[in-house]
Amino acid sequence: MNAADPNDPTLGPNAANHVALTPVSFLARAADVFPDRVAVIHGDWRLSWREVDERSRRLASALTARGIGRGDMVAVMAANTPQMIEAHFGIPMIGAVLNTLNTRLDVAALAFQLRHGAARVLLTDREFSAVMSEALSGLGVRPLVIDIDDPLAVGGERIGETDYESFIAGGDPMFVPPPLHDEWDAIALSYTSGTTGNPKGVVTHHRGAYLNAVGNAVTWAMPHFPVYLWTLPLFHCNGWCFPWTLALMAGTNVCLRRVDAKAILDAIREHRVTHYCGAPIVHSMLINAPAQWKEGITHQVSGLVAAASPPASMIEGMERMGFDITHVYGLTEVYGPAAVCAKSPDWDELPLEERVQRNARQGVRYPLQEGMSVLDPATMQPVPRDAQTMGEICFRGNIVMKGYLGNPQATTESFAGGWYHTGDLAVVHPDGYVHIRDRSKDIIISGGENISSIEVEDVLYRHPDVLDAAVVARPDPKWGETPCAFVTRRDGATVTAEELIAFCRARLAHFKAPRSVVFGPLAKTSTGKVQKNLLRARLKGL
Amino acid sequence: MNAADPNDPTLGPNAANHVALTPVSFLARAADVFPDRVAVIHGDWRLSWREVDERSRRLASALTARGIGRGDMVAVMAANTPQMIEAHFGIPMIGAVLNTLNTRLDVAALAFQLRHGAARVLLTDREFSAVMSEALSGLGVRPLVIDIDDPLAVGGERIGETDYESFIAGGDPMFVPPPLHDEWDAIALSYTSGTTGNPKGVVTHHRGAYLNAVGNAVTWAMPHFPVYLWTLPLFHCNGWCFPWTLALMAGTNVCLRRVDAKAILDAIREHRVTHYCGAPIVHSMLINAPAQWKEGITHQVSGLVAAASPPASMIEGMERMGFDITHVYGLTEVYGPAAVCAKSPDWDELPLEERVQRNARQGVRYPLQEGMSVLDPATMQPVPRDAQTMGEICFRGNIVMKGYLGNPQATTESFAGGWYHTGDLAVVHPDGYVHIRDRSKDIIISGGENISSIEVEDVLYRHPDVLDAAVVARPDPKWGETPCAFVTRRDGATVTAEELIAFCRARLAHFKAPRSVVFGPLAKTSTGKVQKNLLRARLKGL
Repeated sequence: MNAADPNDPTLGPNAANHVALTPVSFLARAADVFPDRVAVIHGDWRLSWREVDERSRRLASALTARGIGRGDMVAVMAANTPQMIEAHFGIPMIGAVLNTLNTRLDVAALAFQLRHGAARVLLTDREFSAVMSEALSGLGVRPLVIDIDDPLAVGGERIGETDYESFIAGGDPMFVPPPLHDEWDAIALSYTSGTTGNPKGVVTHHRGAYLNAVGNAVTWAMPHFPVYLWTLPLFHCNGWCFPWTLALMAGTNVCLRRVDAKAILDAIREHRVTHYCGAPIVHSMLINAPAQWKEGITHQVSGLVAAASPPASMIEGMERMGFDITHVYGLTEVYGPAAVCAKSPDWDELPLEERVQRNARQGVRYPLQEGMSVLDPATMQPVPRDAQTMGEICFRGNIVMKGYLGNPQATTESFAGGWYHTGDLAVVHPDGYVHIRDRSKDIIISGGENISSIEVEDVLYRHPDVLDAAVVARPDPKWGETPCAFVTRRDGATVTAEELIAFCRARLAHFKAPRSVVFGPLAKTSTGKVQKNLLRARLKGL
Repeated sequence: MNAADPNDPTLGPNAANHVALTPVSFLARAADVFPDRVAVIHGDWRLSWREVDERSRRLASALTARGIGRGDMVAVMAANTPQMIEAHFGIPMIGAVLNTLNTRLDVAALAFQLRHGAARVLLTDREFSAVMSEALSGLGVRPLVIDIDDPLAVGGERIGETDYESFIAGGDPMFVPPPLHDEWDAIALSYTSGTTGNPKGVVTHHRGAYLNAVGNAVTWAMPHFPVYLWTLPLFHCNGWCFPWTLALMAGTNVCLRRVDAKAILDAIREHRVTHYCGAPIVHSMLINAPAQWKEGITHQVSGLVAAASPPASMIEGMERMGFDITHVYGLTEVYGPAAVCAKSPDWDELPLEERVQRNARQGVRYPLQEGMSVLDPATMQPVPRDAQTMGEICFRGNIVMKGYLGNPQATTESFAGGWYHTGDLAVVHPDGYVHIRDRSKDIIISGGENISSIEVEDVLYRHPDVLDAAVVARPDPKWGETPCAFVTRRDGATVTAEELIAFCRARLAHFKAPRSVVFGPLAKTSTGKVQKNLLRARLKGL
């Protein structure tokens, strides 16, 4: 009996004690343990977890029969429907890569993604047939096109060689996929909605998707059997990995083709929705909805809101509605949210306004994300926790992309110094919570002083007449730059530029207050981000 | 722009997107995000997460100064105290391996483990100094011995070169450990309490401990900031990974040196304990405690109970007390619980007795454990879901040990066919839930028919006069074997052997009912398992 080494090679991985992590495995368990529970609701259609499992296996089997396998790209242009959820299981189940397309994009952007990602198969919802057939027409090699012919889709026509239901009908519902080759294998490809230039293709892996799916449940402390409403597009970072989280918790997916306040509130009431995610616009719609639409909703509803800067008024409005809102922050490169403004029970005793201010920060890393830091770009050292010094938000850990598809230079740059660089500038509060100040390129430098456009916007949003606001740099011969506010007023509101400037000067250092105000609607990207580059261009022409 | 491969090597792991999984990382986050929350309560002592983090880093730093590092064994003989919790962070933080010793063991067993594991350091609680100094005296090489001089320990004396507080006082509270070499590295060594022969040393790894710590939170759907009472010994499979789960959820550990009904109920009331784990005996103590001890406990308390066969009466008793009990099953080789009798909401509507019967089963795999199956040992194929056909419970996945320390033969045998073999025999119900029938060696074969000793015991436990029961095979010239029941009656109970046999015959196939009954206390191991081998030996002498 001699001392043995607990790390010796006879104690290495084997088939019994090591399996590649993949979130697809949650589906098999949900189907096995809770086969008859409702997995998906779409209109009058109900699918159990057994059915979702069988249909996903059919999809995997039918794709395999067409020669699709490890590393092959399958693009999906779909609304939040059962087929879109099944695509999150059936495609990665065989090592193929899921490329979800943003349904709001134009022909050129879609054609670029199909070509750049080298899609071999395209699943496409009838409602988007016009734009997709145009996008397909310019491709050298046409993928296998499969229509999703959803009865709830509006208009459009079939443009594919077959339709989804026929296609999977030929697949085996008991199909056993080959074991995943490696948990580092690609699971999905998502193009960023860059405001300039060609979008970059973010490649994520099974390991990260597994950990983020679990992390969602832990971060939100989700109960068993959540009822989750799909207000967030599934094409957006794979719905932040929630299709897999829902399988993990054997919950119910409530589909929603269209974000509409009445439809959301009706679904919450009818299906007793417990959880949903969304951009600030979703929450604003709910706040502004007529009171009678909200009647009858008496159960606890929890929402995640993600934004670089959620207006404090929005968080406050949701609190007043009785919803429990948690603020998260992330990017496609980190699988969706990677930071959470984790609520401390102490905050409950604070006055609403102070509580809202704390909740409006980007916060701290997700528990399963290893590192989040605000770094001085020159030294790569963390900035002091003084709520003043700006640095770049960086992430590291297992919930960070593999890199950008076919773009080694961008990949290398984004990982410089062993951290993923978000391009977002932030300060750190004394309690360690991160607070975004700006995108690197959106910062305003006036008389040598940095001005956070977001800080100014936050003040503008506090004015009751302001519906939407964006602040950008205006070239100035004396100061270099000065802040200019683009503002959309609420219907019927009459606030003047002078009044808004005075409002800001009363609440900000004077040099931070806008010097000029432009009224009108704001240019936005397909994912709802304000296009500050276009606003800056407009200023040159003014 | 050419098609790029989403799995190409330029998209490989790097410092920004890959970090070895280790549950130690949860401590840094808890200390960073919730530094002032109470992490540990021990008597009048309160430690915040910042303090636990600093003290764990001091421990890691002081061990490093003594030359302890990757793969080195640090044994701990301790009750459920703050130091024991810190050992779960400070030791693996530097790649060293935590060998927790069972405080109920005798000198020979302890000496065996220190020698076999090659402990280089021993942390030992004053209360256990007598047995430990004897165990140490027989060792060729004496480890560095450090006393844990807990004021709440009863008796004993210091036997070490130094004491824990002095030792860590020399360490650096801001110590930054080297990155973990590999998530497959050993994190802990735990010896099984075999009923015969030398115990085997189960080596677990960081990856598995990480996943199980997270899995605990998901399986139990734990809220943020749980208050967890340490009724389960921390030396038992590292407290089923809960020290790490508590850091993940920024909860509070309520220490308990001794399992005692009054102390448990007082702690639950005083600290508003929300969660605890324990063997059936813990729950029986609570059920049988005087009603006035339970007064004032009005909040929801959730308990996990693990046992090969929890008496249905115990589950029923806890339900009547208003505690929410979940039944789990596992072994040291799978980091503690690896199966859960996942409750279906449908069961809520069942009568208590039926609900209890469902909850008494071992159930289904943990969500983060990849596979659990009941396999025919000859064919390695799953048995039918007929609640009749017995097979062996096997696990596979990432929450399975590396193997047995210095015992390649036992390691290879336990992983035969790509599954970890538990040695427990079970049937599978039509709903897929596993139900243990027996240990392989405890099955009774009578007239060619298999009799599950556990099935017979379950019936005996339903008799109000039975406090404890074990059924074993008695050699029989005609039948080969017949069931013999060893029974401990409740105080003052007078049930006779004939009455018990009749009770069983009324509820079981006649050949399964005991042919003989022996009254008296049952021999048990240090972890409370009945030693059926000793009962069988007694039968030979009867």
